[in-house]
Amino acid sequence: MAAAGGKTWTVNGGSGVFSYSKNSNFQRNAIDAAKELINKAISENLDINIFSSSNTFKVADLGCAAGPNTFLAVQNIIDAVETKYQSQGNTSQVPEFQVFFNDHAGNDFNHLFISLPPERRYFATGVPGFFHNRLFPRASLHFVHSSYSVHILSRVPKEVEDKNSPAWNKGRIQYSNSTVEVVEAYQAQYAKDMESFLKARAEEIVSGGLMAFIVPGRPDGSSHSEAFVNKASELLGSCLMDMANKGKISSEKVDSLNFPTYFASPQEVEAAVKRNGCFRIEMMEIVPQEMPQPKALCSTMRAGMGTILKQHFEEEIDLDELFDLLHKKFEEKFFSVFGSGNAINLFVFLKRVGTE
Amino acid sequence: MAAAGGKTWTVNGGSGVFSYSKNSNFQRNAIDAAKELINKAISENLDINIFSSSNTFKVADLGCAAGPNTFLAVQNIIDAVETKYQSQGNTSQVPEFQVFFNDHAGNDFNHLFISLPPERRYFATGVPGFFHNRLFPRASLHFVHSSYSVHILSRVPKEVEDKNSPAWNKGRIQYSNSTVEVVEAYQAQYAKDMESFLKARAEEIVSGGLMAFIVPGRPDGSSHSEAFVNKASELLGSCLMDMANKGKISSEKVDSLNFPTYFASPQEVEAAVKRNGCFRIEMMEIVPQEMPQPKALCSTMRAGMGTILKQHFEEEIDLDELFDLLHKKFEEKFFSVFGSGNAINLFVFLKRVGTE
Repeated sequence: MAAAGGKTWTVNGGSGVFSYSKNSNFQRNAIDAAKELINKAISENLDINIFSSSNTFKVADLGCAAGPNTFLAVQNIIDAVETKYQSQGNTSQVPEFQVFFNDHAGNDFNHLFISLPPERRYFATGVPGFFHNRLFPRASLHFVHSSYSVHILSRVPKEVEDKNSPAWNKGRIQYSNSTVEVVEAYQAQYAKDMESFLKARAEEIVSGGLMAFIVPGRPDGSSHSEAFVNKASELLGSCLMDMANKGKISSEKVDSLNFPTYFASPQEVEAAVKRNGCFRIEMMEIVPQEMPQPKALCSTMRAGMGTILKQHFEEEIDLDELFDLLHKKFEEKFFSVFGSGNAINLFVFLKRVGTE
Repeated sequence: MAAAGGKTWTVNGGSGVFSYSKNSNFQRNAIDAAKELINKAISENLDINIFSSSNTFKVADLGCAAGPNTFLAVQNIIDAVETKYQSQGNTSQVPEFQVFFNDHAGNDFNHLFISLPPERRYFATGVPGFFHNRLFPRASLHFVHSSYSVHILSRVPKEVEDKNSPAWNKGRIQYSNSTVEVVEAYQAQYAKDMESFLKARAEEIVSGGLMAFIVPGRPDGSSHSEAFVNKASELLGSCLMDMANKGKISSEKVDSLNFPTYFASPQEVEAAVKRNGCFRIEMMEIVPQEMPQPKALCSTMRAGMGTILKQHFEEEIDLDELFDLLHKKFEEKFFSVFGSGNAINLFVFLKRVGTE
């Protein structure tokens, strides 16, 4: 979910063969990997007094997409909170849980809502909107979770789309092999977006409240071009250029396409949190990214990017052809792409400290 | 919104020619008629201390459909609360508003979310689920609103659908001209549904919190068959029978179709509220129903019932033909249907008293 130069980025909806709901195992692995970390962090850091006055514990999942990963993530959190609650001898009145599933207004909430687990033990709500802005009333949340979303920018940096700027990103769809101007524009956008993201959450989360997010990123000290996620989208960009060179799609449209994503290092995340000043980092861990197979990665990328590609190129693009081409490139460059040691997920666990 | 014997009743989604969003002027009139009553009731009955601890005022609209009427209703409420708040000299910190738009999970929330007024001054959320059940945490709402929804039952009474029951409603789609057994089955279902509706709301609304609902109904002492809303659906039923008699649809399917709606009298509503015991009736007013023209009424009914008819008869039914036929009948019986003095909307305003 993001606004990319006026366009919005939503994953493929519904439950069809190319839907996000059927092609999000890659993202699910990140949730599974984070499960134990979240349990541990809640056990060590949750002060149950933060919700004792209303006895309702409120959880938000930001960038929830159309399911089903969000349901797993939320259930993990609820289980951990209940365990902590009971471990402190509170067994008389079980807290109630209210869960806010957030994504852009163009997300397939209809699919999300009809897929809600029937046996859930929480009150479910959907919240449409960008998480770079305020989405909730002041001091109304106890736990904010976000998986595979905080790396999505609020927009493609303006100058990257501007033909007259030295940061114009001609012929590429992301920044990792681009000029220093392009990389700097992305870095600046990320810093600005993290600032507004953390500012909004600081207002919404109660004092003592918690936030966990897991994002794909790159190790400290490594270059952007070495990151697995960047290598994969760089290859997607080269497939688009191949198709443009064959006259199958417009090369101008490839020039004007840029993905609004940025893969930060742990140091960059830490710097953003410290600049904001409202959260204490309780835990920050690197979780190795499990390598998908080429075919699975193609499906994941198509489910995540298919809608934005279709919108950008309108009807002229043949997505079957594009992702067949990508699959071939993945297989040709298997060791270069999938053998990378630089494939990480970053797990970040924050506590809201003080009040403004 | 309702579960009708396992089926769910949702209005037509989207923004097409037969959509609810384009064909809900009839229901909008009820909201307009209630506007001044809500202003007055909030001005006289709202205790602003009920939300002063968090400074967030939480509003739910139950049975919101796919818009746009719900946005008008909610804005009326927010304006009235702000006026009351400011009239008491509270101008330093404006409260924040959180609005929960509720309807069945099959409702077109995607359309609702992309239609949200961009200039709204509230945090918007969608809540999927039946309002006959709990939808929100305990004591979490300050104002509950519902327009043209509380007359919808949680289901068609079981016995009405049972061929072996004396209450089997053969050849009709509602109860107003049916046997006493059918009418009694509907009355009992209504009483049961109001009980669960009010019990759930009593748990969700804070002490001192308010609830306003407006429903189509019939005057005290009048028969079901005299009510305008019943006359209109009785005619729809007769059109279905005509089509069945011509072999265009299955007469068995007409027999098995029953609408899950009940049009109560003010006395019945009052009795239900008193039985529940958690609310005080602050205001109960009869608002005359503005008479639509036959064509407009056909569009309204198609937008509200088209989806359930299509589901019930599957693809075999030609809705154009059905509603053309209905239009003709409306014109033939204009004075009998539209000249009725028994067309009322009932405005009910309740305050949550005490706590359980």
